[in-house]
Order: sequence, then structure tokens, then C-alpha cells
Amino acid sequence: MRPRSPNTRHHKRVKLHIERPTLLLNQERAIKNIEKMAKKAKASGVRFRPHFKTHQSAQIGEWFKPFGVKSITVSSVDMAAYFSSHGWKDITIAFPTNIRAITKINALAEKITLGLLVESSETIDFLGKNLKSNVNVWIDIDVGYNRTGIPWSSTREVAGLAKKIAGSKNLAFAGILTHAGHSYEAKSTSEIRRIYADSIFKMQKLRDVLTAKSFSNVEISVGDTPTCSVAEDFTGVDEVRPGTFVFYDAKQLDLGSCGEKDIAIALACPAVAKHKERNEIVIHGGAAHLSKDFMLSKEEDKVFGYVCMPTENGWSPRVNNTYVSSLSQEHGIIRTDAAFFRKAQIGDLLMILPVHSCLVVDLMREFLTLEGETLLTMPKFN
Amino acid sequence: MRPRSPNTRHHKRVKLHIERPTLLLNQERAIKNIEKMAKKAKASGVRFRPHFKTHQSAQIGEWFKPFGVKSITVSSVDMAAYFSSHGWKDITIAFPTNIRAITKINALAEKITLGLLVESSETIDFLGKNLKSNVNVWIDIDVGYNRTGIPWSSTREVAGLAKKIAGSKNLAFAGILTHAGHSYEAKSTSEIRRIYADSIFKMQKLRDVLTAKSFSNVEISVGDTPTCSVAEDFTGVDEVRPGTFVFYDAKQLDLGSCGEKDIAIALACPAVAKHKERNEIVIHGGAAHLSKDFMLSKEEDKVFGYVCMPTENGWSPRVNNTYVSSLSQEHGIIRTDAAFFRKAQIGDLLMILPVHSCLVVDLMREFLTLEGETLLTMPKFN
Repeated sequence: MRPRSPNTRHHKRVKLHIERPTLLLNQERAIKNIEKMAKKAKASGVRFRPHFKTHQSAQIGEWFKPFGVKSITVSSVDMAAYFSSHGWKDITIAFPTNIRAITKINALAEKITLGLLVESSETIDFLGKNLKSNVNVWIDIDVGYNRTGIPWSSTREVAGLAKKIAGSKNLAFAGILTHAGHSYEAKSTSEIRRIYADSIFKMQKLRDVLTAKSFSNVEISVGDTPTCSVAEDFTGVDEVRPGTFVFYDAKQLDLGSCGEKDIAIALACPAVAKHKERNEIVIHGGAAHLSKDFMLSKEEDKVFGYVCMPTENGWSPRVNNTYVSSLSQEHGIIRTDAAFFRKAQIGDLLMILPVHSCLVVDLMREFLTLEGETLLTMPKFN
Repeated sequence: MRPRSPNTRHHKRVKLHIERPTLLLNQERAIKNIEKMAKKAKASGVRFRPHFKTHQSAQIGEWFKPFGVKSITVSSVDMAAYFSSHGWKDITIAFPTNIRAITKINALAEKITLGLLVESSETIDFLGKNLKSNVNVWIDIDVGYNRTGIPWSSTREVAGLAKKIAGSKNLAFAGILTHAGHSYEAKSTSEIRRIYADSIFKMQKLRDVLTAKSFSNVEISVGDTPTCSVAEDFTGVDEVRPGTFVFYDAKQLDLGSCGEKDIAIALACPAVAKHKERNEIVIHGGAAHLSKDFMLSKEEDKVFGYVCMPTENGWSPRVNNTYVSSLSQEHGIIRTDAAFFRKAQIGDLLMILPVHSCLVVDLMREFLTLEGETLLTMPKFN
């Protein structure tokens, strides 16, 4: 008999101890995902400023450092404070600045290179009056997602804000930033590529206008996992800020941003009941673990996750005709076919590929690596 | 000038300190909700076994004790362990028993009166072999929700399981338990009343069959907030297990289970941006705080929460024509009319009545009372 590798042996030990919904992390896959994105950015001569809201973990943050990552993105002032306290010195908060948190913002600005995002003159006025140290200020641009930002075609408004930033004490105009979140609605990778090209086109046009108005060194920052994953290179922008790519998930798989073997997390869930008349398996693993984010199947059914089996080294490819069809707080319902229904037993673990890794991590707050190490996220509130 | 009451003064102080999404709790309303439900149960001569998954807090658990509550419901083995460590001695885990957690189940069964829920002979066999102390076992019955449980009309199957329980070492057959979760789909309070009456009818018919087969003292346990809120009394059952009623929420308001002044929690969110062309206000308050649970408006739009204004004593009645229309991880988008759009300013706090209080509490993990006290939930994992 061949001796098992240490890795396999470790995983087997982990498997035996799982008794409740547990977020498994395949560290090797996550590091491969980081390496691939970092190399693509480097080859394009573009700054890689990954979004750390996906993992929220100082320990996982360390995995980025060997690939030269020194600058990061976060989504809240508290998250910036957490990563700053773990040694990160160049952090952009890619969320419209929350002026109520000015005390914490000032504390950060004193210590690190802080980037803020604005899209209104009220916020710029407030910062000009209340900031005590220098910050880099980005203007949030809407290239079609319609969530936040100034429409890219409102060049006069953007130029007006840029002028106000440049004229405000402690504020330096860094550039224009967008999140092309409408890429999540794309029906094909060619549509994602089109959205990426369209975003870059709009951002460059806007920069040209700003440059013509004598703003120098206006940087372009883009970043969402679908476009950053399918884009061949990042020529034409100054920095990319994807986040979800570190783990990917079922939604990214459906979009074509990743392959199944790139997905680095799965939620291990105990099977607790079976309903033969409906070919349904009930798991302990609900909205409190997976979040209520869903995708629609071709048949327009809600899908809250794909289902895999545990293996010696992690989890199997996804089981055909099988998905999480509904969730309540602690319950998940898996709909399957007669073959898998017969195979799965009460007390088994089933491995769920989540729809949205960011929200699952935010709910679970800790990871168990396949080597048996527990990694923590930041505290929910600090 | 009239002196302000201490309560008002305290709340004013709290309001000034809110700088990030914060879950506010109106303690007075929560206690009124507890009192009302406890009195209704008492008047019907029925055991009140409230579901503590909604608040998950030992401190809030104490508020039930003055109303004679000694027995509680939880949704996981870990939650049972938490409340047991805070002195609760009679706990039912109203979730299909997770046999992988047998070590923790045995530790609990040794210390407290533990109720378990089963719906398969495999689970009963496992418990019979592995339990080391006595537990009360309930059979999960499906009266129409189709999530878990044996269909109520499968009387032979239920009787078979009851017999197996009664014949197993350390297992005592306690009765039949249901959760009529389809009440959440009701279109009117009269439909909720019909669902309640229908559930009771089915459970009583099933008990009659079991009694005829010589099972004695078969108890009936029911409980979901809509039916328990609108039912006039609880005659005909032995215990009720509602949970959400302690705080209620926007969904319960829409269902008619509560009035707006019964809602005891609201998420305070800073306004960070405004989009005049869409009458939209962006708040810091997203899926990481509110969960992705939604309701559909009459116009079939997704609604992730209602919007109120802060007041000296908490929050105002909900603002007309105004609701949370979409959420991403940290962003919430409020859709409103021109009048409220003009009124709300960047930096203001807006108070969101959440769609599903259980999930918001699970995400937020702490409450700030209007008197300025921070109350904690159980740790996410222990």
C-alpha cells in the first residue's frame, strides 16, 4: 500500500471532526487564483490592489505578499482599520465616504496612505473642513451598473468635483474609479469582455476630458471579478481591484469567470433528513451560513448553491442534477435525482459550492483549511 | 421648558455616536411583545416555549423570565449549549437531529431536560445506540409547509416512529411538533387564521390516531409567529414556539401579524450618496447587515426593508413611497419620492425596518438599546 501524503492524512483528520456547517478552504487553489491575477496585472504593468472584503482575514492577506501586493481595497472604514492594524500601509476604501466616521478616517489618514471615494460636493466640502492629514481622493464613476457614482458622460460634473478636490486642504485628486457590477448580469464571457472593453473605453474618454482640462496624472481604477477574470490583459488602466477571484464561487462558475477547480471554498453541511417523495435532502446549512443570494437556473428555479461530495482531498466535482433549492435560517433543502437521493445518507457531509463567496465568508467568520488550520476573519465589529 | 425624561436624554446621546450600521433595539416594545404572547399562552393554559433563535442573546433571554418562561426552543445544538450555559434547563432543539453532534448532545442531555426532533428511523436507531442520558423526542410533522417532517396524513409512518422511540433506550416519546411556515405566504390575516385552524385540525387528528394506538400523553407543539400572533387563543395544543414576535419586522407587518409600533428593531444606516436622476439614496447598510431576504411589493418590486427617520425616542413611522430596493455586500439603495429625496442629506442616519429580524440579528450579533446599552448575541461559533 502506498503511504498517504501528509496533506491527505491531514484532510482525513479534519473530515472526521466536522459536526456542524463548516467553511472549508482549499488554500492551494486560493493561492493559485492570487498568483494568476497578480501575474496578469504585472504583465500589463498595472497596479494590483485586490479587494480584501472577500476574505476579511489578516492571515489570508499574507498570501498576497509573495506576489508583490502592497496596496489593497476594502469596503468600510472598520475594515481599513483592521488591515491597517495588521501592517497594510496603502488602503483604498472603495465605498462612498461615510462622513460620520470622520474620527476613524483621520486616525487612519495619519498612519497610512489612505484612498477615499467620493461622488458629491457635500462630501468633499466636509472632508476639506475636517481632514487632518493627506488622503488620495477618487471620484466614483458609473459606467452602467447604476448603483453608485457619477455617470461617465457627466464630464462637467466630474471635472467640477475634481477641481474642488484639488482645491481642498489635505485632499489630493488621485483619479477615477469604477465598479462594473453589471458584468454579473452577463449571459456569456464574450458579453463580459464587451462590458470590460466598454468600461475601459468610457473611463479613458473621461480621463481624456480631465487631462484636457489640465488635470495631470489622472489614474483609472477598475475592478470586478468577472471582467478581471476574462480580460486578456489590463492595458489602458492603472489599477485593478477584483476581490471574489480569490475563492470564486458558483455564480462565477456560471458566468464563466472560473472553472470548477478554481473554486476554493465549500460549506460542509451535515445531512439531517431525507424526503423521498420529493427527492429532497435536508441539510444543516441555511441562510445563516450561505446567505439568501441565489442564481436562477435555466428553468428559472432559484439555486442557492451546488452540491459536491467529500473526498480525501477536499470535495468532488459537483453532483449532476443536484442543487440547494431553498434556505431558511438553519435549514437548506437540496433537490436531486433518485440516484443521488439513494446514495446520500443521514449523517453524511455534503459540500456546498456557495453562490456568493463574499457573503458566505461574512456570515461564517472562519475558515477551516484542508490541512486542518482555522483561519479567522476580522471581528464583525471592532 | 419641560425637562426631558432620562430615557429621551439617553437616546439622544446614543444617536450622536452612531457612525456605522447599528442594530437599534426598543427594549420596551420587545418586552410588550413578550408579555402579550406569554399572557395569551397562559390564558389558554398552554406551555409557552419561545424560540430563542430570533435574539440569540442570554441577556434578552432574561426578559422572558418575569413572565414565567422556563422552557425554550433553539435551532441548533450549539445554541442549546449556549443557553444551557446561561442557566436554561429545559430546551428543545426544533431542528432535525444532527447526529454528527452526538458528543455535544450527550453533554447537554446529562445536564438539562433536552428535547430532540426526529423524522426518520435511521436517526432514532442512532440515538438509541449512542445516547447516554434521557431525552424527550418529538416527531416532526408536515402540515403543509413541505420543508421537513412526515406528512400528517402518513399516520402509519408516524405511529411506527413513535413505537420505535418508545422502545429505544433513553428516548421518551414526547409528542408531535410542527412549523406551519406556509403562513408566511398568506395574503391576509384571515388566511393565516385558516392555516392555523387547519394545522391544529391535522395535528389533533394525528394525535387521535396515536392515542387510539395506545400512546398516552401525546403532546402537540406548534409555533410560527404569524399564526401565533393572529390566533385568538391556543386552545387544543400543548405548547407554542413562536420566535420572531419578540421583535417582529417588515414582513410580519405586511402579513398583518403586528402593527408598526410593535416592531422593536431597526438598523440605523448612514446615508453616503444621493442620485437625483433616480430619486435614490445610497446607505452604508447592505447584505452583510440586512441579509438578502426580500418581500415583493404590490408592483412586484423587491423590498429589502422599509425606511424611517431617527427621532428623539427611536424612529419615526415609515416614510411613504420609500423602501430599500437593492443590496450588495455593504451598499443599500433606497428608492424614494422627490419630497423625501430633498429632505434626506448625506451624513444623515436612516432607520431601516428589516424584512426578517432573525437574519439581521444573526448578521449583526449585537444590539444597541435606545438607552445606550450594548447587548450581545451568542458567539457565531463556540
